[in-house]
Amino acid sequence: MLGRSSLISVEAAQHLLLDHVQCVGETELVALEDALDRIVAVAIAAPEDLPSHPRSTMDGYAVVAADTFGASESMPCYLPIQGEVFMGEMPKQVLSRGSCMRIATGGLLPDGADSVVMFEHTVPVDDSLIEIVKSVGKGANIINRGDDIESGSIALPAGRRLLPQDLGLLAGLGITRVEVYRKIRFGIISTGDEIVAYDSRPEPGKVRNINSITLAGQARRLGVEINDYGIVADQQESFFPAIEEAVAHNDVVAFSGGSSVGTRDLGEQAVAMLGSPGVLIHGVALKPGKPILIGLHDATPLFGLPGHPVSAMVCFDLFVAPAMQKLMGYKEQSLKSGPSVDAVLGRNIASAPGRKDIVRVQLRFSEGFMQAYPVLGKSGSISTLSRAHGYIVIEEALQGLTAETPVKVYLYQ
Amino acid sequence: MLGRSSLISVEAAQHLLLDHVQCVGETELVALEDALDRIVAVAIAAPEDLPSHPRSTMDGYAVVAADTFGASESMPCYLPIQGEVFMGEMPKQVLSRGSCMRIATGGLLPDGADSVVMFEHTVPVDDSLIEIVKSVGKGANIINRGDDIESGSIALPAGRRLLPQDLGLLAGLGITRVEVYRKIRFGIISTGDEIVAYDSRPEPGKVRNINSITLAGQARRLGVEINDYGIVADQQESFFPAIEEAVAHNDVVAFSGGSSVGTRDLGEQAVAMLGSPGVLIHGVALKPGKPILIGLHDATPLFGLPGHPVSAMVCFDLFVAPAMQKLMGYKEQSLKSGPSVDAVLGRNIASAPGRKDIVRVQLRFSEGFMQAYPVLGKSGSISTLSRAHGYIVIEEALQGLTAETPVKVYLYQ
Repeated sequence: MLGRSSLISVEAAQHLLLDHVQCVGETELVALEDALDRIVAVAIAAPEDLPSHPRSTMDGYAVVAADTFGASESMPCYLPIQGEVFMGEMPKQVLSRGSCMRIATGGLLPDGADSVVMFEHTVPVDDSLIEIVKSVGKGANIINRGDDIESGSIALPAGRRLLPQDLGLLAGLGITRVEVYRKIRFGIISTGDEIVAYDSRPEPGKVRNINSITLAGQARRLGVEINDYGIVADQQESFFPAIEEAVAHNDVVAFSGGSSVGTRDLGEQAVAMLGSPGVLIHGVALKPGKPILIGLHDATPLFGLPGHPVSAMVCFDLFVAPAMQKLMGYKEQSLKSGPSVDAVLGRNIASAPGRKDIVRVQLRFSEGFMQAYPVLGKSGSISTLSRAHGYIVIEEALQGLTAETPVKVYLYQ
Repeated sequence: MLGRSSLISVEAAQHLLLDHVQCVGETELVALEDALDRIVAVAIAAPEDLPSHPRSTMDGYAVVAADTFGASESMPCYLPIQGEVFMGEMPKQVLSRGSCMRIATGGLLPDGADSVVMFEHTVPVDDSLIEIVKSVGKGANIINRGDDIESGSIALPAGRRLLPQDLGLLAGLGITRVEVYRKIRFGIISTGDEIVAYDSRPEPGKVRNINSITLAGQARRLGVEINDYGIVADQQESFFPAIEEAVAHNDVVAFSGGSSVGTRDLGEQAVAMLGSPGVLIHGVALKPGKPILIGLHDATPLFGLPGHPVSAMVCFDLFVAPAMQKLMGYKEQSLKSGPSVDAVLGRNIASAPGRKDIVRVQLRFSEGFMQAYPVLGKSGSISTLSRAHGYIVIEEALQGLTAETPVKVYLYQ
C-alpha cells in the first residue's frame, strides 16, 4: 500500500491503478443503430471493396483521357455525346474512343472510360456535341474500386469507440452488427452518519446526499450503467455487506465516505477484508482529493472517495474515469480526455509544493485574451462547480502560478 | 433566397439560419436522475440556504478565535476539551469561553464557537486538554450558513445544460424535479435513385445508405430523438409526401440528397411547396458541403444535405447542430463547440480563395510537436473520416496553408 505515510503522486497513483485494471473482455453483438460510442472488441475487416465499381466524383462527362490530350481554352477538343449514365444503373454501353457520356457524381464509370471531365471545363455545342477546354489525366475525377477501402483491410481496429462516421463506414460495407465489449456496471455507495437522501428534509447536522447523483452523472457520460446502492450507515455490520454486494454485481465500485476518521478507516478495512490485492493506495498528493482510497478485489477496482462533492468529482476524473475506460476496452493510448482551451491566468494563485492542485476557474474573454479566474468558494461548496467553466492543474513542483501565466483549462462539459 | 448565383459565406449562412430558429419552448418536469444534459427552461432559485448551519471545513477543535490570540509554537495556549461534536447531530452544548470541542469536517459548529483550529496545529496534552500552536482568526476553517448558496439566489440560469455537478447542487438544495425543455425530434430522409438500405446487397450502380446512420449518430450525441424515414425515391409523388410527413412530426428535418441535378431541384421544390418562409439558402462557400439547401417551414428548419457522407457530416456540424442547439433551448452564447487541440501543419495544403475549406487531418506527435497531416482520400470516401482525428478550417481569404502553420484541430469525438 502506498501513500499512507508519504503521499504518492497523482501520476504514480494512476499508473499503479491502471497496471491492475484490465478490460472486462466479455463481448456482445449489437445492431449498427445501437453501436454508437460502444467499443469495438474484434478488429473489423472490410468484407468487400468500397466502392465496388469505379465511379465519378464529379458531374461531367466520362471520357478516355487520351482523347482530351492538349485541350485548352484556346485549343478545345470536340467529343460527340454517346449517351448518359443513369444514377443507380449499370451503364448500358461501352464508351467508344473519341466520344463521351454524360455522368453525374456517383455514377458508375462506363467500360472504356478512364476519367471524367468536369462540367465546368466543357461548353455544350449542341445536344450531341461538347467542347472540352481543359485536358484530364487518366483517373481524373473518378474513384476506383477499393479506393475508399479494400476488401480484407482493417476498417476499424479493436478498442475503437464507434463514432458516427464509423457507423457510416460499416453501413457502407454492409456490416449490420458489431461485436463490442459489454457495458460496464458501476456500483455507488454513499456513506456517513450525516448523509440523508436528497429528497428528504435534513435535521440539523445532516446534509443531503450529493455524491451519488454527481458520480452517476459523470459515469453516465462515459456510457457506464449505474447501480446506486443509496446511503449505507458507516458501521461495519451495514457497510461490509453493502460493499460485498456491490463488488459481486459491478465492474467498478465507489463509496463516497463520510468525513469522520472512523469512516475512513472503515473503508480501508472493508477493502482489506475483501482480500487480495486489497488496498493499493491511500492518500494522493492532490488537492482536493488527498484522502482517496484505491483498492482492488480480484479484478474489480474499488474507490473510497472523499465526502466533499468537489473532491469526489476531481477523484472521479483523475482515477475512476481512466480505470473505467480501460475496463470498457479503450486502448490505453486513446484514453479519452476532455476538451480544453488555452487561457492566461487572471490573477496569482498560491499552492503548496509537493502536491497537484486542481483549481476551478471561470473564463472571461477580455482585452483579446481568454482569461481564467479561480472561482472563490469554501472547500466543499458544490455551487463553485456550477459556476466554474473548468479547472486548471498546478503541478507538484510549483508554489503557485502568477497572473498572466498561460494555462490549459480543462472544460466541464 | 441567398447563395444560388453568388455563394453565401458560412458565417452569413449561419447567422441567417439562426435568426430564423427559436427554442421549441415547450417544457416538462423531469426527475433529477433523468435530468443530465437536459436544458433548464426556467431559472432555478435556491429554496434555502446552503449550508443551513455553520459547519467545520476541517478536522480539529471548535474554539472562540479570541481564545487563541497570540498562540504560537513557542508560546502555545492551552484549552480544556469541553466535549465532542458528533457527525450528523446537533451539538448538545454551548461552547464555553476558554474551552474547545472536538469537531470533524462537516460537523455543525456549536453555539458560542466562531472558528475551528486544525488538528495539525494542536498537540494533545491529555484526554481533556490540548495545546494550540497557531492562533486562528474569527471564521477560520468554517463555512457559514448560506456561504455555498443563499436562499433566493439563482442556483442555475435558464438555458443551462445540466452537468453532473449541477444535479449535485440541486440535490444539495433538496430540489428533486427540474423544468426542462422537451427533447427535440429530428426527421431524417435519405433520397436518391442509387441508394439502397445498408443491410441489402446493392446491385451494380447502387450504394448503401450511409447518411441516415451517420446523421442519426451526430444528432444522438446532442440528445436529440431520431425519426428515420428511410430511403425515399426522388420522384415528386414519393418525396413531397415524405417531407410533409417529416415536417409535421419533427422539430428539424434533413434529407440527404441523391447526387443528381434532378434530386437537388426536387429538394428545393419541396421546401418551396411547403410555403413560407421557404428556401433561405442554396449553396454556401464551403468545401465540402457547397450544395447545401437550407429552408424553413413555419418554425421548422429543413436541410437538404449533400449526398456525400463526408459533406453531409460537415454540413451537420456547421449548420444543423447549431440550429438544433437553439431549438433545444441553449442560450446562443453558450452554443456548445466540440473540443480542439493546437497543432502545426505537417505539410502544405492548397485551397481556393473565396470558400471555407474543411480539411480532415490525422494528428501525430513527433519532434515535440503535435502535427496535423491531411488525410488523403477521394472525395466522398467515408473511410477518410474514420482515419481522421479531426478537421481544420481554412478560411475564405486564404489560398491554402503552408507547412508548420499553427492550426486548431477540431476533434471528432
